[in-house]
Amino acid sequence: MSDDAIFRNIPQFTVLRFARYLNFLITLPDVVEEISSSEMAGIIGIKPTQLRQDFFTLGGFGRQGKKYNVRFLIQRLSEVLALQKPQAMVLVGVGHLGQAIANYQGFERFNLILKGIFDVNSKLIGLRMRDIQVRDLDELTPFIRQHQIQIGVICTPHQAAQGVCDLMVEAGVRAIWNFSPENVVVPVGVVVQNENLSVGIMNLSYRLNRELS
Amino acid sequence: MSDDAIFRNIPQFTVLRFARYLNFLITLPDVVEEISSSEMAGIIGIKPTQLRQDFFTLGGFGRQGKKYNVRFLIQRLSEVLALQKPQAMVLVGVGHLGQAIANYQGFERFNLILKGIFDVNSKLIGLRMRDIQVRDLDELTPFIRQHQIQIGVICTPHQAAQGVCDLMVEAGVRAIWNFSPENVVVPVGVVVQNENLSVGIMNLSYRLNRELS
Repeated sequence: MSDDAIFRNIPQFTVLRFARYLNFLITLPDVVEEISSSEMAGIIGIKPTQLRQDFFTLGGFGRQGKKYNVRFLIQRLSEVLALQKPQAMVLVGVGHLGQAIANYQGFERFNLILKGIFDVNSKLIGLRMRDIQVRDLDELTPFIRQHQIQIGVICTPHQAAQGVCDLMVEAGVRAIWNFSPENVVVPVGVVVQNENLSVGIMNLSYRLNRELS
Repeated sequence: MSDDAIFRNIPQFTVLRFARYLNFLITLPDVVEEISSSEMAGIIGIKPTQLRQDFFTLGGFGRQGKKYNVRFLIQRLSEVLALQKPQAMVLVGVGHLGQAIANYQGFERFNLILKGIFDVNSKLIGLRMRDIQVRDLDELTPFIRQHQIQIGVICTPHQAAQGVCDLMVEAGVRAIWNFSPENVVVPVGVVVQNENLSVGIMNLSYRLNRELS
């Protein structure tokens, strides 16, 4: 099987672990050329056996006691997570959460480029965030088409979320990252990830009361 | 086996689905007394067979075509997720992300009560957010002890995160909800959930390029 075929069916939890590995490795200073599975597992907070099994999935390496080449791991993980080529994003809704995400410094490291920021509030339109001017929502559709935007980030209040999602999808966006409390619905051929604060805290409540008790 | 024993070992993905169900059910108007698995699955965006299997896990109900009592489901899910009794939280770091979380309206529905907000910035100390005054970080330890805080939310820059985490744990917090980019480390007996923006967007990149291609 080709890499593409193999990497199409990775369980979601494995994908999330791969993302955590890459997120860790990419912040290492350049002088760190090699790392052992036990060191890395300890820092990330994961079982060494799990990490070695994941690295084995990545390409047949993963023996106990062996050191891994950091640069090779970064390249391999970037390939699997489809982060080698730049992907363009727009963000709609510049409340506190939208501003926090717009100002987040971590995206560029993964070739994710925030190209446009939009709102309906005339007091915000024209302001600059990370050197990007906030535009009127009316400009969203032509902007997405012109810049071939693939990822749309929704940070609006819940009433506006589905409408903004529809605009994005209609204009050509194929992945929705939704931070509004509304579960947005997308057609087949578009992926959506709902980042719901309530779900996160409920999971923590479960772990606090069930894992520890 | 008692409920407690059964519900201690639910796989994390199942817990996350339970949280999504509860999050949906709790927003239904009071007049909706019953709901079918197919209706609910359609709105949430999950397979009906999966939902019925989950409801079966919850207590032996889950037949096709059957309607579920909304109030009973809410009660059952709240029990499993350990949300029946109030849990007190503090939040440290009132940047954009901290303000977004402090102003989030959804927590009280799940008995999660934000009791204190803290920062080191003297310009922010004394300001009120949702009727809670921002306090000096120096007051964190006595506050946690006095109010028996169980959950600590970290919204600081990454350099400050581990120090704030240590303060919280030392004072008695047993669950850390970490929104800083730093993976904080906690001792045995404390749970931590790292909500990392990079991990979320990498997962979306994977799904966009691997599931759709």
